[in-house]
Amino acid sequence: VTDLPDVDAPASVLVLGAGLLGTSVALALRRLGSDVVLHDTDRSRLDTASALGAGRQWAADERVELAVVAVPPLVTAATVRSLIERDLATTVTDVASAKARPQREVATSSSVAARYVGGHPVAGRERGGPTSARADLFEGRPWVLTPTDESSDLALGRAAWVAQACGAHAIVMTAADHDAALARLSHLPQLVASALAAQLVGLPSAWLELGGQGLRDVVRIARSAPELWAEIAVANATEVASALHAVAADLTAAAAALAAAGGVAATANADEAAAAAVAGLVAAGNAGYERLPTKHSAEHLRFAEVPVVVSDAPGELARLLTAAAEAAVNVEDLRVEHAPGQPMGVVELLVRPETAPTLVEALTAKGWRVHS
Amino acid sequence: VTDLPDVDAPASVLVLGAGLLGTSVALALRRLGSDVVLHDTDRSRLDTASALGAGRQWAADERVELAVVAVPPLVTAATVRSLIERDLATTVTDVASAKARPQREVATSSSVAARYVGGHPVAGRERGGPTSARADLFEGRPWVLTPTDESSDLALGRAAWVAQACGAHAIVMTAADHDAALARLSHLPQLVASALAAQLVGLPSAWLELGGQGLRDVVRIARSAPELWAEIAVANATEVASALHAVAADLTAAAAALAAAGGVAATANADEAAAAAVAGLVAAGNAGYERLPTKHSAEHLRFAEVPVVVSDAPGELARLLTAAAEAAVNVEDLRVEHAPGQPMGVVELLVRPETAPTLVEALTAKGWRVHS
Repeated sequence: VTDLPDVDAPASVLVLGAGLLGTSVALALRRLGSDVVLHDTDRSRLDTASALGAGRQWAADERVELAVVAVPPLVTAATVRSLIERDLATTVTDVASAKARPQREVATSSSVAARYVGGHPVAGRERGGPTSARADLFEGRPWVLTPTDESSDLALGRAAWVAQACGAHAIVMTAADHDAALARLSHLPQLVASALAAQLVGLPSAWLELGGQGLRDVVRIARSAPELWAEIAVANATEVASALHAVAADLTAAAAALAAAGGVAATANADEAAAAAVAGLVAAGNAGYERLPTKHSAEHLRFAEVPVVVSDAPGELARLLTAAAEAAVNVEDLRVEHAPGQPMGVVELLVRPETAPTLVEALTAKGWRVHS
Repeated sequence: VTDLPDVDAPASVLVLGAGLLGTSVALALRRLGSDVVLHDTDRSRLDTASALGAGRQWAADERVELAVVAVPPLVTAATVRSLIERDLATTVTDVASAKARPQREVATSSSVAARYVGGHPVAGRERGGPTSARADLFEGRPWVLTPTDESSDLALGRAAWVAQACGAHAIVMTAADHDAALARLSHLPQLVASALAAQLVGLPSAWLELGGQGLRDVVRIARSAPELWAEIAVANATEVASALHAVAADLTAAAAALAAAGGVAATANADEAAAAAVAGLVAAGNAGYERLPTKHSAEHLRFAEVPVVVSDAPGELARLLTAAAEAAVNVEDLRVEHAPGQPMGVVELLVRPETAPTLVEALTAKGWRVHS
């Protein structure tokens, strides 16, 4: 953050695209008192966002100091270029989830490229319309900026100003690194979860009762919108293809080893080779999991899990957490494990390991069924 | 459940294998007052389980009415056969996570096959040793039984008796159906999550800060034990291989479509074909997700999500849930979304849709920052 140019707040900002992201940016800037003008080709979205206080409507020839382009990924580059070529904005940034493709398409002349710095607020939601917008959508989130050697300090400083005005923390990366990272951390997990969930389509209903919490966790994001993810994946097509190929190759290798094992005619050697292949894959997954930053990332804490049986009655969870709070134990996270169709479940409380014995003792004393 | 033979409780039960599953079964049966004898080739595990009250130690020539085999999957069949051939148990069941392979290996003579019915308590944990055992480990869980045409009513009735004595609900399936179902609902999700997490191994640390809650959900089970999953996958090798191939094929098809799109030389047709491939995969994932039974499976409820901003202070979660309980709204589930390194996060409360407005109003009135 220290190497970002410090610039004055722009006197006027145009937000182009009054969807969830654009309207949220506009609301955050308005909160700071900025003069924000809005535009959207969809008249009703524009009216809604404007009525929500996201800014006044843009007169199409009105010049601004900064434009924030928040239109679908595949039309982002053309919109950025048009604003600069028509000199409607001094500098331009955007919020699209892929960065290399718009950057390449914008860089047709160095005078255009100087005035654009790509941006991507990594906020976990991409669509939802202006009524879902919130001024604090980006608070505490990373906001990637992808300047090039041609980018002016003014363009970079203003893009960073937007990120900071929205409460996000700006991170500078190359567009190529950003796209490679997002392919593996966001686009790949989505498509893998979708492919896994897709396998459930043809199964007999009775079988599905055998799915547990692990399955539910893996497929939770499989509810995402197909058209949205089609746009995101195509905008980052090369990196997503490469990431998909890598996972598919690992799964295919495990499948081949297993297909040679287990059958009536399989040898002990084939069983051993398959076991080694699977153990290697799961061990690599262990190592990958360990790389994820924890909540308190500097400390790389591991939490202790305290499973407690709770009934399905109203207020049970509140009673449980109140008991934990009364024992002065901070619950860092929790997971509810469902037993489908059953009136009770298990709640796993995640706490700092040194506080687990206190928690177990306090809960047990109050009659909770705790497994430690 | 109604078509299971009703039998008397066996006068004596041998539990072979004093790990997590075996000791938990033994504790559940002891709780009912059954005469349980225990054995394990690991002397210290046996002593521990016995000291925990899981039963007295087996004299190796002592005959029992029922044996429950809880040894690793790949030695299950040989153990079952040996007990029957040496006539140490009238009937035998087991708890291994794959059923076709032990069944095939047991069925060497019909007199042996008649006395064995395979079982699999689907409890989400497979290992952990006797000190993690709990009499209620299987409560409310499915417990699959896989009788064959050769199985005696006595063998089936006693296997069902064990499941019911452990508080599980018995489900009768063929071994082939069980293995096909578990491959897709348990073994495949594990290996897919592992393969995804394995992709994180080589990434620069700074990139990992861009991973969100979706990634965390998908890779949560990637922490599982490699050797355990190697055994489970090899014991069900053919079905797991088939399930892995199907997912890998879907991912490879999406990768191929994306590899042809997005580049400098890509045509609009290639972009459209890739978008259609991705949208198709994500839509199939939507359809698969919808097939999962909900907590109240008969009703197939969908919950409304109420996201609330909470600080990282002790007792905040308790205060929030107490406020929900005071508004007489039952929180069906919740998710904590972490902002790594940040002092606050968002908690998503899942409630019945008709109660969401009441909850939002009550929480807002008490000063909570709610996004609806």
